[in-house]
Amino acid sequence: MTDVLLRGGLPWGLGAPADILVREGRVDRVSLGPIEAPGARVFDVAGQLVLPGLVEAHCHLDKTLYGGPWVPHSADDTLSGRIANDLGRRAELGVPSVARIAALLERMSAAGTTHVRTHTDIDPVAGLRGVEAVREAAAGSPVDVRQVAFPQHGVLTSPGTAELLEEALKSGVEAVGGLDPAGIDRDPVRHLDLIFGLAGRYGAHLDIHLHDGGSLGGWELELIIERTKALGLGGRVAVSHAYALGQLDDAHQDRLVEGLAEAGVAVVTAAVYSFPVPPVSKLRAAGVTVACGHDGIRDLWGPYGSGDMLERAMHLAYRSTFRRDDDIELALEAATVGGARALGLDDYGLAPGDRADLVVVPAGSPAEAVVVHPARTLVMKDGVVLHN
Amino acid sequence: MTDVLLRGGLPWGLGAPADILVREGRVDRVSLGPIEAPGARVFDVAGQLVLPGLVEAHCHLDKTLYGGPWVPHSADDTLSGRIANDLGRRAELGVPSVARIAALLERMSAAGTTHVRTHTDIDPVAGLRGVEAVREAAAGSPVDVRQVAFPQHGVLTSPGTAELLEEALKSGVEAVGGLDPAGIDRDPVRHLDLIFGLAGRYGAHLDIHLHDGGSLGGWELELIIERTKALGLGGRVAVSHAYALGQLDDAHQDRLVEGLAEAGVAVVTAAVYSFPVPPVSKLRAAGVTVACGHDGIRDLWGPYGSGDMLERAMHLAYRSTFRRDDDIELALEAATVGGARALGLDDYGLAPGDRADLVVVPAGSPAEAVVVHPARTLVMKDGVVLHN
Repeated sequence: MTDVLLRGGLPWGLGAPADILVREGRVDRVSLGPIEAPGARVFDVAGQLVLPGLVEAHCHLDKTLYGGPWVPHSADDTLSGRIANDLGRRAELGVPSVARIAALLERMSAAGTTHVRTHTDIDPVAGLRGVEAVREAAAGSPVDVRQVAFPQHGVLTSPGTAELLEEALKSGVEAVGGLDPAGIDRDPVRHLDLIFGLAGRYGAHLDIHLHDGGSLGGWELELIIERTKALGLGGRVAVSHAYALGQLDDAHQDRLVEGLAEAGVAVVTAAVYSFPVPPVSKLRAAGVTVACGHDGIRDLWGPYGSGDMLERAMHLAYRSTFRRDDDIELALEAATVGGARALGLDDYGLAPGDRADLVVVPAGSPAEAVVVHPARTLVMKDGVVLHN
Repeated sequence: MTDVLLRGGLPWGLGAPADILVREGRVDRVSLGPIEAPGARVFDVAGQLVLPGLVEAHCHLDKTLYGGPWVPHSADDTLSGRIANDLGRRAELGVPSVARIAALLERMSAAGTTHVRTHTDIDPVAGLRGVEAVREAAAGSPVDVRQVAFPQHGVLTSPGTAELLEEALKSGVEAVGGLDPAGIDRDPVRHLDLIFGLAGRYGAHLDIHLHDGGSLGGWELELIIERTKALGLGGRVAVSHAYALGQLDDAHQDRLVEGLAEAGVAVVTAAVYSFPVPPVSKLRAAGVTVACGHDGIRDLWGPYGSGDMLERAMHLAYRSTFRRDDDIELALEAATVGGARALGLDDYGLAPGDRADLVVVPAGSPAEAVVVHPARTLVMKDGVVLHN
């Protein structure tokens, strides 16, 4: 494997230009002075920001229509309408499609995403077809794809789903999901006990969709915190969306943020539409891991999304009304280090010994990279230059 | 002037591919069958959407730092902090800068913007320097730029400003602005009487920044509606931002929307950050003109903004939770026809006789153009191809 030398870039966090030598798929050396590396493939990235690989921590690859012709949105404005529309049109549109998923992964990779966590629908109709389609597309992609077995249509309210979730975990799916234990599945205690039980038994991560808002969502967060502590699953549990966190008053918010920090529960946000965004600054100040993702990308749930995680970080910063560079940088952190932490990635970063998953952005600062999100000039995965 | 023939594009609203012949700066013919035009410069735009020129209806060209190096945001999170920061750093950063304004206009033009309404700061310190800088930059640009004499630091609370606003109008500035008549200027009745008086005397348009929210903002909208009706200024008055409209309950909102429609007051929105967005569907259903703009673009008030009005329309559609094509199209309407109506543009559109201000977008539908906002393939102003 040929060594690669990135010459004169601005490694994020270093504060000065440096050379980065990549050897055998790992960051070998980072040096403020010039590195001599005979035989290495050299890229001059002077004045450009070097980031660790972008981490897409919440998407739905199995649902995507990406890469195909434009499909006008056909659902009404209710959640039940969107579910019915999704179920009704999947067959007609050939969802899940390995080719579409592969096209989206290719787009994500070109934009510097090296790791993806995707919530794959598991239900008695689709069975594990989504899991298999994502697996097949991922096998042909340099992107590291980790799946969440996701009960999109409920667990308790959709008999047979619990067994399928377990089957998915047995087949090697990395995480088990949940969905509005109160609002959708109607029995939050049993719902959570069931999925926490599965996570415990299979050593899986847990990532729970929580759209339930206000005090109901806040109470469900308490249930999740309690179970994470009781089962010692800190660092392996995430709550996605968590709109309630963005809606409650400061005192209530503070109590929950403290609970999430103590328990080691991460928050994953997509900052979509006008839905509430969790308080990123406050969560980070308390030490809670915050990750970021697109949610749906061009699918039957909505037509938006580009697959570019720097653009997504812009949405997160923008919706958080972050204007100052250090605030905007929190959104970049969510799209990189925060995602890596939520997914439990090993050896992630820009330090010697870390896996050489690197992205070069023609921007002079992290905030500029987020706000402008210019096309990436180089993307590397495990030391292999994929795009430049 | 050479004729131009756009071959086989999809003129917005026509529903079928057509040829468009441009002659002497105007749309000459639109035909479903092929047009023969010997000597014309021909562009094959088959399968691509043809739009009238994009209209940026609310920005602040005089403040921009566009085209220069990244400037980290340096204000605190209060309005007074942002005003103080703005005043304090303008000289250091050379604002207003004809070169920066020209760079931004060039970017806007390349993205298909043909008309701009910009709010230019007028205050006793800056005097009319902003107006002159914008005029100088606009003189070298194909973009049609119309200014609003904007009392950024208040009128009544900033003695000497009223006289400067009048001086600006005498010098040919097209519109007079206002700013939170209650929240900032502390005397809404006198503030509005003063600026409505100026608009009436000079035959100028009126475009009032209204961030004041809730019932206070709602009441100020009533004052604006009353004055517009009493003075017969319908079609010449706009309210920018109008956050209150996005905050009030349905019944209150309905009353105001009806009043705006009756009086002929337009609403201009930028859909920035997490601030409330006026109810676009409801406003349009009632016949209220809705226009759209960026607000600040890369300036001391915030680092965001690209100058691309299709991207801005995406933000408006996204924040409005528009998923269906016909809803998303309302955002495109705001960035085109709605803006034209708010600015009082003549002969705007794609019909024979209209000025040939045209944009070609490699998208198969209006909704796709907004969501994807791909780079424009052709931009024409008054029949002259500027970018292709």
